[in-house]
Amino acid sequence: MNLDRDRLWADIETLAGFTRPDSPWTRRAFSPEFDAARAWLARAFAEAGLAVRLDACANLIGRRAGAEPGLPVLMSGSHCDTVPAGGRFDGIAGVAAALAFARALRESGTALRHPFEVVDFLSEEPSDYGVSSVGSRAIAGRLSPEHLAMTDAAGETLAQAIARAGGDPAALDRPLRRPGEIAAYVELHIEQGRVLEAAGLPIGVVDRIVGIARHALVVTGRTDHAGSTPMDARLDALAGAARVIAAVEALARDLTGKPDYVVATVGKIAAFPNAANAVPGRVEMVLDLRAGSDATLAAFPELLKSRCDLGPLGFEIAPISLAPATLCAKPVTEAIAAAADRLGLGHRALPSGAGHDAVNAALVAPAGMIFIPCRDGRSHVPEEWCSPEELHDGARVLAETLLDLDRRL
Amino acid sequence: MNLDRDRLWADIETLAGFTRPDSPWTRRAFSPEFDAARAWLARAFAEAGLAVRLDACANLIGRRAGAEPGLPVLMSGSHCDTVPAGGRFDGIAGVAAALAFARALRESGTALRHPFEVVDFLSEEPSDYGVSSVGSRAIAGRLSPEHLAMTDAAGETLAQAIARAGGDPAALDRPLRRPGEIAAYVELHIEQGRVLEAAGLPIGVVDRIVGIARHALVVTGRTDHAGSTPMDARLDALAGAARVIAAVEALARDLTGKPDYVVATVGKIAAFPNAANAVPGRVEMVLDLRAGSDATLAAFPELLKSRCDLGPLGFEIAPISLAPATLCAKPVTEAIAAAADRLGLGHRALPSGAGHDAVNAALVAPAGMIFIPCRDGRSHVPEEWCSPEELHDGARVLAETLLDLDRRL
Repeated sequence: MNLDRDRLWADIETLAGFTRPDSPWTRRAFSPEFDAARAWLARAFAEAGLAVRLDACANLIGRRAGAEPGLPVLMSGSHCDTVPAGGRFDGIAGVAAALAFARALRESGTALRHPFEVVDFLSEEPSDYGVSSVGSRAIAGRLSPEHLAMTDAAGETLAQAIARAGGDPAALDRPLRRPGEIAAYVELHIEQGRVLEAAGLPIGVVDRIVGIARHALVVTGRTDHAGSTPMDARLDALAGAARVIAAVEALARDLTGKPDYVVATVGKIAAFPNAANAVPGRVEMVLDLRAGSDATLAAFPELLKSRCDLGPLGFEIAPISLAPATLCAKPVTEAIAAAADRLGLGHRALPSGAGHDAVNAALVAPAGMIFIPCRDGRSHVPEEWCSPEELHDGARVLAETLLDLDRRL
Repeated sequence: MNLDRDRLWADIETLAGFTRPDSPWTRRAFSPEFDAARAWLARAFAEAGLAVRLDACANLIGRRAGAEPGLPVLMSGSHCDTVPAGGRFDGIAGVAAALAFARALRESGTALRHPFEVVDFLSEEPSDYGVSSVGSRAIAGRLSPEHLAMTDAAGETLAQAIARAGGDPAALDRPLRRPGEIAAYVELHIEQGRVLEAAGLPIGVVDRIVGIARHALVVTGRTDHAGSTPMDARLDALAGAARVIAAVEALARDLTGKPDYVVATVGKIAAFPNAANAVPGRVEMVLDLRAGSDATLAAFPELLKSRCDLGPLGFEIAPISLAPATLCAKPVTEAIAAAADRLGLGHRALPSGAGHDAVNAALVAPAGMIFIPCRDGRSHVPEEWCSPEELHDGARVLAETLLDLDRRL
């Protein structure tokens, strides 16, 4: 089966054209640029022989019927929305690769046993309504009334926005897909890291998607005059926060690879009163903690506390959010690895440190992901890049994997 | 000589009434509340037998003539402006104590050999024009054309504001006082720290006012995805900044008291992009460094660099401002200590960790400061407090010191 490299690349370039011109590449879900990209995608799906529809959460779906009646669907895709001033590949690569496979099926006259669906999930990136992975949440029934009532800056609710995008929010009180309806979900995505690039490998076989725990870290001391308070009379919250930051880094380094992948980041910090001439009395931070196992996520806060001796300073760790780790389905990961082998493409297993639509798909279907390298690991920036060859290699592995799963499932 | 404690306290309470009602205690220089306080002070100065005038920088001055013609002036005072939502004692205590002395001179019919001036310096606190110690700078000729051209948010220049307050900015191209014109300057002030309170002493004899160096500290790394960047592949600028903060604290602790008073504070910090899911690529901090000697101020940055091993991270230290240390005049500090001894009030020498009008006065006159305790060391907040007794004790030492200097100088 021939997967047209130039056509695939041309699709990426066409989709990149649907951007806010003053801030490439920006295609926020629910925006005019997004609607235009969706209109183009719907035409491209149809031209690839797919029956096009929007589901109740305005996920754009193109379906090719299967040869054997009653079999569950093979699904592949990702999302076409972007963060502000983001890249041309995050999400879009997965939609374009699945479309390329559908096109190749049509052009080669290949009949699959299973129905095949290309999906462009609605708003995977954090939306203006404060919710991310909107469309894939809905297929697993994880879009709550509270989510649907959230509003953007203009006061529009997420439910109203979904209706505006062509969905039916009233139908979102139950999962859009039931277990058993999807035979397998396979998503191609750029790695958004440097592991493949550093290893010189074209293919990553994602074995798990890390769980993500966010915690508020608050160190409290006492605001004092920076001149008239001797060093031994201070309760400097920022000096305490520095010890916390160092402990976070050291603990994650100690834990990672034994055996889980662990990363821990203090990315956000605010000191109060944040004045040059005042000893900080309070520091608020956010800990972003990701691990391949939920047990590691759960154990980290107490380990951190036991490592931080802050003396008379106060130190509180309060959970903000928790998304458990997702194990990819073995039949899918094995099919991806075998496909890469057959195509002579080097590969390695690796975790995904970022969340993806596959997390929600995995709740209702055997799911897996194919990573392709991206230059210098950069993502969510205009410089985000993978080469036509890298994208094509990934799409070939996707196609080979889907063909294999179609035969075996 | 009787220094009326209740009258002194009543003056503090009266001055506290000149505040923005929505944000006590706020009496910003050049504001209507400030003008009203100044009008009241001018009347109180006159009632105490002082000849009242504004000098070219709108410093409010009340003068009592001396008995011996041609002698230089004894000066005492401070400032009556406040920071936003500040206290009732910072600055005001010094003006009220000097006024109380003038009143006692009149009521007791005491003739001094030297002329005596009570001064309320203009805008000691950082003004809305970005300059602090405006009035005392002018007496030493340290108000530059650049300072005078600085503007507030509404676009008014500092020169215009000084004219509005009754000054003559055209005359500020030279010092308002020449060396020899002031026999001594003695300023009473709350400590703004906890040293006296902790020691249970009513009087601090300020032996020096620390020099203050401000430096921008910038740590540069690389912004990365917090999920997909393994710990060993990061250039985390905040983790580096944590090492810098710890080194600043440790270095100041090591240096202080050997023999200088040293305090070093990272009070202000900003991480970029400051997002929970991003490894910080850049951290900007401000180092506030204060020491009793200029040599320690000068040596600190290199010592800090030698203590911080930030590996591949970038680390820059760039000077923002430098105010050298001020030694108080020995005849003045000796007079203060002797006065406290005669009054049976315990005292100790201590440095001032904050800047004061006395820094500028010391450039043109022998200068010294009397510190009185303030509760829990708090200042620049509405809770700022000293008791009527503590204020009265300080004012008595001030009076006794001025009487002594009048005899001996």
